[in-house]
Amino acid sequence: MTHVPQGPGERTKRKIGWHFLQLPGPTNIPARIRNAMDRPAIDQRSKQFARLALKLFGGLQKVFKTKKEIFIYPSSGTGAGEAALANSLSVGDKILMFDSGWFSFLWIKMAKQFGLDVDVMETDWRHAPDPQAIGERLADDKDRAIKAVFVVHNETSNGVTARIPEIRRAMDDADHPALYIVDTISSLACMDFRMDEWGIDIAVGGSQKGLMLPPGLGFNAVSEKARRAAETANLPKCYWDWEWQRECEGTGFFPYTPAINLFYGLEESLKMLLEEEGLDNVFARHARHGEATRRAVNAWGLETVCQEPREYSDSITAVMVPEGQSADDLRAVVLERFNMALGGGLQRLANKAFRIGHMGDMNDLMLTATLTGVEMGMAAAQIPHEPGGIVAAERYLALGD
Amino acid sequence: MTHVPQGPGERTKRKIGWHFLQLPGPTNIPARIRNAMDRPAIDQRSKQFARLALKLFGGLQKVFKTKKEIFIYPSSGTGAGEAALANSLSVGDKILMFDSGWFSFLWIKMAKQFGLDVDVMETDWRHAPDPQAIGERLADDKDRAIKAVFVVHNETSNGVTARIPEIRRAMDDADHPALYIVDTISSLACMDFRMDEWGIDIAVGGSQKGLMLPPGLGFNAVSEKARRAAETANLPKCYWDWEWQRECEGTGFFPYTPAINLFYGLEESLKMLLEEEGLDNVFARHARHGEATRRAVNAWGLETVCQEPREYSDSITAVMVPEGQSADDLRAVVLERFNMALGGGLQRLANKAFRIGHMGDMNDLMLTATLTGVEMGMAAAQIPHEPGGIVAAERYLALGD
Repeated sequence: MTHVPQGPGERTKRKIGWHFLQLPGPTNIPARIRNAMDRPAIDQRSKQFARLALKLFGGLQKVFKTKKEIFIYPSSGTGAGEAALANSLSVGDKILMFDSGWFSFLWIKMAKQFGLDVDVMETDWRHAPDPQAIGERLADDKDRAIKAVFVVHNETSNGVTARIPEIRRAMDDADHPALYIVDTISSLACMDFRMDEWGIDIAVGGSQKGLMLPPGLGFNAVSEKARRAAETANLPKCYWDWEWQRECEGTGFFPYTPAINLFYGLEESLKMLLEEEGLDNVFARHARHGEATRRAVNAWGLETVCQEPREYSDSITAVMVPEGQSADDLRAVVLERFNMALGGGLQRLANKAFRIGHMGDMNDLMLTATLTGVEMGMAAAQIPHEPGGIVAAERYLALGD
Repeated sequence: MTHVPQGPGERTKRKIGWHFLQLPGPTNIPARIRNAMDRPAIDQRSKQFARLALKLFGGLQKVFKTKKEIFIYPSSGTGAGEAALANSLSVGDKILMFDSGWFSFLWIKMAKQFGLDVDVMETDWRHAPDPQAIGERLADDKDRAIKAVFVVHNETSNGVTARIPEIRRAMDDADHPALYIVDTISSLACMDFRMDEWGIDIAVGGSQKGLMLPPGLGFNAVSEKARRAAETANLPKCYWDWEWQRECEGTGFFPYTPAINLFYGLEESLKMLLEEEGLDNVFARHARHGEATRRAVNAWGLETVCQEPREYSDSITAVMVPEGQSADDLRAVVLERFNMALGGGLQRLANKAFRIGHMGDMNDLMLTATLTGVEMGMAAAQIPHEPGGIVAAERYLALGD
């Protein structure tokens, strides 16, 4: 790295001002939510807690756009993904998965560790799984060996969004009975997601992205078809067992200690998203910020990792640095000088790309601050780029052109 | 106002994301300080409290750069100004004051209400009081009728900084015995201030600016000369009475209930400023942000209210809008669309200028966010300006050129 003038915080022990946590999750936790959680725990067997839990299940159904049952685990999103597999499948079951990004790849790894027979379709990590190719693969599966199709809605590692309804149509066109399992971890409450309308059998979610909560809650939303599949699924489970969770269904009680304070936070989050902002506005806000970010990237003369406009993510933009440049050096400069955390490229994108999270409780000035941080970081790290990124984003945000 | 595309928060009940409080005080209160205050009050007559108070007096002496006594009032900064006058002067005393901005003007009003004989020198509100003119006025005061010279260090209403050491030299050159009373409310812990070296008799401070605290603490730092003057000063006082305060001196106890939780916050603030960042770094940071802001203003083709480079403020920049434009409309657009509060022009600058606060716990991205908010606000409000403001600020912040 070259010598650059010192910024705040560089020469001092303390970090100055707000930390810009521009990862694609965990996201900035609003003070309201932190304050809501800043209360003593209560008896998780009390009526008071049960009322809260039942209210949250109702709110989550609105977020997932489902009338189906929902399970809340004290877990990360990965736990909720394991729950989806463990409940619905049996050892040796064949499932269709996609190596279309780092997190998609990790699901494959998990499935293999459970002894599932994973049929892997690959992308170049710059495109989402192709609905047409999926349809063809399923049509070829004459004996209906494939028990589930597992798709990541929004690939957090590259900012590529799968066309979930189109994949559903491809499955229907192939008249294939596989379960449709969708990871909505970094899309839920950022981009439209319609569990029921899109015919999803299991939706996998987490708390630390669009829901603006700390990490610590994992969600499964489960269709009747998935529930029936669970009756014969023999993968070993206990913690994740829907049946165990379901014993408590409708009561608001849980088989083991729920993450009570995160429930307080979720209550506040649902109030903010559903009652005060409204999901359509939440989605429009994220779409606006995604577009502003891409306009900046385009003006810089850089490429987004995502190469298909229909698959641009509204919640995270991954950006390729020019050949021979180090994305990780850029991230280090940005963190050190501008107190901003950007996501790094993962695995095959390591050091070649960085990721700008623009999800959760973000407003326009938080986004422009983020984009100036990237722009100034590139200047400081001497990464070649065209001028005009922030100006293009501002023009779009202020004037819409 | 013209129609502009909607931004976050405009169509929803809730304000999204961080509120950018870019007033020239109160300033953004860091979470650390809020957390430090989030404790129960303790007995203000306990040894524990006395230890805390004595520690704070020591810390404040470092901030004021003085070995003199300091008084802490549960008050606003205005209260501390009243304390300065009430303790040091008698009814009918002549004092020299400056109509050099709105807050300077308010001190004049206060002094007149106390029956002081105020000799007013005026500026055009775009320059600070002129040290040479002050020297001449004092030299003309042959019978030494002027008992005090009251100067605002950093005029919060226009971003003009008085040259405090030069005024001291002018007083010395005139060999005039007047007390030198200085309002450091919006300069303390933002810009260098040297109570003892600059020969200041009474320094007036407040908590809600560079100290990053909520409003509620007022400070007087008092020289031996001011202390002697107080012995015969007959303006009525009780709450503000230094003597009453002084009875407690060295004990850490107060004549009436101190603002205990603000003391907790002040302890954290002093740790951040003195131990972790260091005052010189604090000043360098504010100077850097003042310069970046002025470069943006200059690129926009707009004028700062302050017209004398030696008098540019590091903590607040007041900006003239072009003739015929409304600064208040701009502020309304910025608040509504970008969740950012800017200061308005006051009295003769009303609607003609707006004020950008860049003081307290600010880092580079908070500043660039602020400048994009102004820039996008001007675009949305159709205020004519040249492009390039944010880019000029970024270049300076990232590359120093």
